[in-house]
Order: sequence, then C-alpha cells, then structure tokens
Amino acid sequence: MPRYRLTIEYDGRPYKGFQAQGELPTVQGALERAVLAFTGQSVRLQAAGRTDTGVHATGQVVHVDLDKAWPVETVRNALNAHLIDEAVVVLEAEEAIGDWHARFTATERRYLYRILNRMGPPALDRGRVWHVKKPLDAEAMHHAAQVLVGHHDFTTFRDLQCQAKSPWKTLDVARVSRVGEEVHLVFESRSFLHRQVRSMTGTLAEVGVGRWSADDVAAALEARDRKACGPVAPAEGLYLTGVSYAAPKVPK
Amino acid sequence: MPRYRLTIEYDGRPYKGFQAQGELPTVQGALERAVLAFTGQSVRLQAAGRTDTGVHATGQVVHVDLDKAWPVETVRNALNAHLIDEAVVVLEAEEAIGDWHARFTATERRYLYRILNRMGPPALDRGRVWHVKKPLDAEAMHHAAQVLVGHHDFTTFRDLQCQAKSPWKTLDVARVSRVGEEVHLVFESRSFLHRQVRSMTGTLAEVGVGRWSADDVAAALEARDRKACGPVAPAEGLYLTGVSYAAPKVPK
Repeated sequence: MPRYRLTIEYDGRPYKGFQAQGELPTVQGALERAVLAFTGQSVRLQAAGRTDTGVHATGQVVHVDLDKAWPVETVRNALNAHLIDEAVVVLEAEEAIGDWHARFTATERRYLYRILNRMGPPALDRGRVWHVKKPLDAEAMHHAAQVLVGHHDFTTFRDLQCQAKSPWKTLDVARVSRVGEEVHLVFESRSFLHRQVRSMTGTLAEVGVGRWSADDVAAALEARDRKACGPVAPAEGLYLTGVSYAAPKVPK
Repeated sequence: MPRYRLTIEYDGRPYKGFQAQGELPTVQGALERAVLAFTGQSVRLQAAGRTDTGVHATGQVVHVDLDKAWPVETVRNALNAHLIDEAVVVLEAEEAIGDWHARFTATERRYLYRILNRMGPPALDRGRVWHVKKPLDAEAMHHAAQVLVGHHDFTTFRDLQCQAKSPWKTLDVARVSRVGEEVHLVFESRSFLHRQVRSMTGTLAEVGVGRWSADDVAAALEARDRKACGPVAPAEGLYLTGVSYAAPKVPK
C-alpha cells in the first residue's frame, strides 16, 4: 500500500480548521472527499499540523495510503481537479519512503504570523492578516522574542484546552522583522502547544506598541500561568509554512 | 469647496471595474455611496486610472470635492466605516493643493502584474495572480521587455475598443523579475492604452516559455497591428500600484 506525501496550501477562511468534524467544512474533509472521488477509497489523512479555524497554510504536509500505486503527478493533478471548488491545493505529491509519517516523524514545524501595521484596514488581505493600527516596534519585538527561544515550560502561552501531556517545548527560532507595511513573526519548533504561536504573537505585539518590555515577557514565561499571557492574536494572520523531517529509516 | 485626494486599495474580484455603470457593482459606485452616506453629498469621483473588471489596486488615487472642510483623518475613517462591507479601503486622505487633479495632473502611473509560476494552482491567491504552469524565463522576459521601453506607436498592444486619440505612448519602465514562485512585471508610464499592460504581459509570457524571442516582440511592436499581439494576460494578476504627480501650481 503506497504512502503519498502531499504538500498542501489552503486559505483557512472557509474552514472550521484542518481536522475533520462530521459535516462541518474542514480542510481534512475536503481532501478526503477528493481522495474518495479520485480513487474510490475512504481514507483518513494524517497531517503534520492540525491548524485551527481560520488559520492558513502554504506548506502543510499530510499523508495518505492508497491501495494502488499512481504516478505522483497523477495524484497531484487528479486531487487538484477534484478540489476545484475548494480553497485547498496540492502543491506536490511524492512517494513516502520507509517509516515516514506526516505527523510522527516531523522534526520541525514553521509558522509565519503576518501583522498588517498601518492605519487603513486591508482590502486585498482581509481575513489573511491581523490589522494593528498602532505603529509596532519590530526591533523591540524581536529582542523580546529571544526570551522565548530555548527549552521552557510554556504554560503561559498554551490554551487552557491544550491536550499535550507536557507544557515543555523547545522553541528553536523566533524572528520578528518589518516587511513594508507588515510585521512578520517566524517561529520554528519540533512541535507547538495549542495556540502557542498566537499567544506568543499577541504578547509580543504588546511589546511592539510599548506596553510591555522584554522583562515583562520573561516574567510572563516564568509565571507558568495562562493568566500572565498577553492578548491572543487572531487566527487570520497565522500560516503553517513548512515542515521538516528526519531522513527516513528505509527497511531492508 | 475643498478637494480631497484619496489613496485607495481594492480587490477587483467583486467589481465590474472602477468606473460607475448604473446598478452594477463598481469601485467608483462603492466609493460614491460611502461619500453620500458620510456627507449627504452626491458626488462624481475622478480617478487616476479606470481599471477593468477584476483588476486590483494598492495605490489608486482619486479625488472628491466636498462642500465642507473636514480633518483628513475624519474623511479617511468615516469613508472606511461606510466601506466596511466592500473590498475597498481608503489608505490615506489628504487635502489637494492648487490645480491638482487625480486624473489630469498625473505624471506617472505604475502597474504590477503577478504571475504565479508553479504546477499547483493558487489556493490563497485565487483571482489575484495569473497561474502559468510552464516554467518562465524571467531574465529572457526582462530582456525582451526592454524592446518596449521608449516612445512608440503601441497599436499592437492596444485593445480594439481603446478610446485614446493616439496610439503613441512613452513607456518609461518595464522590469521583469522572479520573486520566489512568482514572476513580477512592473510597468511605468505617464499613461497607458486600454489593455496595454495585459497585452504586453501576455506577449512577454510567450518569451518566458520560449515560444517568442525578443526579436519577435520587436517585430510585433513594429507591425502596429493588433493581430501581431500575443495572447492578452487575464485581469486577475494586474494591480495599479501607484500614481505620481507634478508639483502643483498653487494659486496666489
């Protein structure tokens, strides 16, 4: 049973998140319907990241096990043909090797958070950026973000509904920079807690407008208390941009 | 009667172009309704560029003459409040000086054309880029684009419906570059003929895929014949990005 690795782009706006939930519109539901239409198989996809309602992806990775082996271009093109009325696209299909698993063998997940930082609201990017009118000091945000890098108990930056067993995670990269009228926040980690990126982003925005200092961020992290978190940034600015994997163990 | 200069961003998808056409949804119609709701005045806006159906703008410039003088922030914020259900935003409002006119005193108009150049169709930018699957040689396109720069009879690159008296225009800038998965074409001129940017873009894309040479573009220009033009690129990738004005003549 060949396993296919699919790299996926989607606009989160029309969907109640990635994960299938009965009849609700979800990214997983759209993809699984496309697989059924293409192959006749009812499948359950596995994904690297289960993004929330309204969160976008430019580099989500999923896998699907098909009964029959197809050329990878056929898998990509046939799925895209069946996704024509959805805001989901298969960018690439590859055959998976060895024990590769979209979720369990991922070693790094990358997120981008886009803040539109100008007076005028977005006309072209409505629902795809967080609109913040007050000028943000991206350098101060970047400086404060370094407090979060490393191995920490991220209880402060974790949604109360988070299902993860441990609040300890290692944040490898937190980078904040100004890109024209936008401020971009990039975060990389093996895995994230539920709402961690949006919680860190909302807190760093407090630094950006001058209400919090880097020391305040350090104290919030140290508190290990959800109530110490700044406001949580909205879903609309968040993008899952990529996933890395260890070299697969190939069976002999 | 104070004149206000408004810098406008819009998503062209929901509109039948800029110019008001009775009951059809247009950018001008949306703006004029917002002015009416804000001031009670029925106005006729003037715009630097009358963009076609589906064409976007990040830097359209319009003017409106209001009976009463308002702070510019009030004009911007009040219009945006009335535009809340539209894909049109006022980025900036300024008071116009002297004989300034959004259309007649413009000295340079800038357009960007975005081509998404990858196998997978756009999920996030559907309707906002032209999707070209075949790999484009952006350098060859840039080289060929230089043929078009200068003062020429652009009959080949002009829609048959074009109302302009003369087909002679001066193209100041034509720049093609690769930006990640996209190819961007930037054109600058005092003014453009109808569909000129899309006609030049479609023709340069023929160079990008290797079907046309720079010499073929030169021959097409020289032909001064609409039939010599390459395929016209679709509206969805086109953005009016900015307008420049001469220093105004201030009355004494």
